Amino acid sequence: MTSIAVSFNGEYALLDIGEGTQRQVMHAGLGFGRLRRIFITHLHGDHFFGLFPLLQTLSILRRTAPLEVYSPEGLSKILDALSEFSHFRVTFPLRVVEFSGPSVFRFPRYTVEFFPVDHLDTPTFGVRIRERDKPGRLDVKKAEELGIPPSLRSLLKKGIPIKLPDGRTVQPGEVVGPPTPGKVLVYSSDTRPTAGVVEKASGADLLIHDATFRDDLAERARATGHSTVGEACRVAIEAKVKMLALVHFSARYRDEDLDEIEREARSIFPNAVVARDFLTIDL
Amino acid sequence: MTSIAVSFNGEYALLDIGEGTQRQVMHAGLGFGRLRRIFITHLHGDHFFGLFPLLQTLSILRRTAPLEVYSPEGLSKILDALSEFSHFRVTFPLRVVEFSGPSVFRFPRYTVEFFPVDHLDTPTFGVRIRERDKPGRLDVKKAEELGIPPSLRSLLKKGIPIKLPDGRTVQPGEVVGPPTPGKVLVYSSDTRPTAGVVEKASGADLLIHDATFRDDLAERARATGHSTVGEACRVAIEAKVKMLALVHFSARYRDEDLDEIEREARSIFPNAVVARDFLTIDL
Repeated sequence: MTSIAVSFNGEYALLDIGEGTQRQVMHAGLGFGRLRRIFITHLHGDHFFGLFPLLQTLSILRRTAPLEVYSPEGLSKILDALSEFSHFRVTFPLRVVEFSGPSVFRFPRYTVEFFPVDHLDTPTFGVRIRERDKPGRLDVKKAEELGIPPSLRSLLKKGIPIKLPDGRTVQPGEVVGPPTPGKVLVYSSDTRPTAGVVEKASGADLLIHDATFRDDLAERARATGHSTVGEACRVAIEAKVKMLALVHFSARYRDEDLDEIEREARSIFPNAVVARDFLTIDL
Repeated sequence: MTSIAVSFNGEYALLDIGEGTQRQVMHAGLGFGRLRRIFITHLHGDHFFGLFPLLQTLSILRRTAPLEVYSPEGLSKILDALSEFSHFRVTFPLRVVEFSGPSVFRFPRYTVEFFPVDHLDTPTFGVRIRERDKPGRLDVKKAEELGIPPSLRSLLKKGIPIKLPDGRTVQPGEVVGPPTPGKVLVYSSDTRPTAGVVEKASGADLLIHDATFRDDLAERARATGHSTVGEACRVAIEAKVKMLALVHFSARYRDEDLDEIEREARSIFPNAVVARDFLTIDL
């Protein structure tokens, strides 16, 4: 059952939320208070059946902070049915945003883009998270030479031109270096290898890709709308990503198989890793 | 999250099915093939949110055998919504039986009775499972004296009178001892202490009772529709059950607390046990 926590300073979001996610969140020590958003890639149970019990737990814990859930169309009807026909009650502000096609959502710290992937007849979306660019370094020496008072320097760092008391205008580029581009993470969700993932993951810091089967079961991967380990590696090569994390392994594979899968993957794409439970990747 | 597996020879049923039950079923080595029925006591998430992922897993495993689910009204509407608004598909024969009041269901090996308990405004039912009586012992020596051919003896054991080739009729009581009464298990579900549980559990082999709080939080137990450890013990004493298993502890209690709770309970009702994960009780 899939769930990926994407942590920023002081908050985190979940990508998908399969059964048992709340338990793993507790084990991982993430806490529930810092969870702000949940992004669901498609409405297959192993990607969203952990939502209802989490909402119940947050209600029992008397959460008051809002929670946002982004999902392909259908989720709110299911939540409505749960409220109408069972004793399911959400007692904090829950905002469900549904979409039926490619969508971009901008938040203060990051932008999330949902793009269609190829998972049989189920509307399924990959996710691209782009962290906001970090402002460039301010050249303090130069700022002093130009006589810019310290109180105005943070405006320049934010990219805002300023006017000095003597009437001179200073452009940010005169004292601030180029911004550091935000990190980019792409999650393929469940999918066949697609050009869309290659495009969206181009140059990404991390690609998290479906690798349900080993290459000897390529036919089965095709039939079920998933990718093989080799296919995932080739997407990573084509997209020239910096790192690849393989996820969503078939239950047939044991720990020893995963060790072998990791070796196989690294022989194709050296910076590949098998995403076991609780794996942490620092970007 | 609650789930209790009740095993008979070669098959088992689940009482309630909270999130994560399928995982615990796997860890317990019960397997899915022998699961025939699921009995849900009320539609609070911690008692039924494990159903949807289990149904999905059974479909992926290509189950063909039927599965029966007995639930208070509402469940089938929720399953309908899941089918309509997500890509949830059950690919084996699923029979959902709903009830809105006290109900009795008779199966070949046992009878299940749902009876109302007291859990705030949520329709909630306790469960009484009575195993079928075991036939008495056949007195082989006497059967031979009466000239009863071996082929007819199993009929007598089943309580059926037989006619011998010479025309004589033999009543079961002539050669078969009294039946062994079937074991009785009562599960209170989530409830305040009630006379209904005392009545249904009278003389039961095992009472599984809500003990969400210790006695110092009696007010909280009242406010949330649960029982304290002491209240559960007093129900067991009044009902004169042979054994008491305490369940549904608040998440505030740690392992050490549970050890203390068990000692407290045994000081009131000596044959009490705290039901930790994977506890097995052989009746």
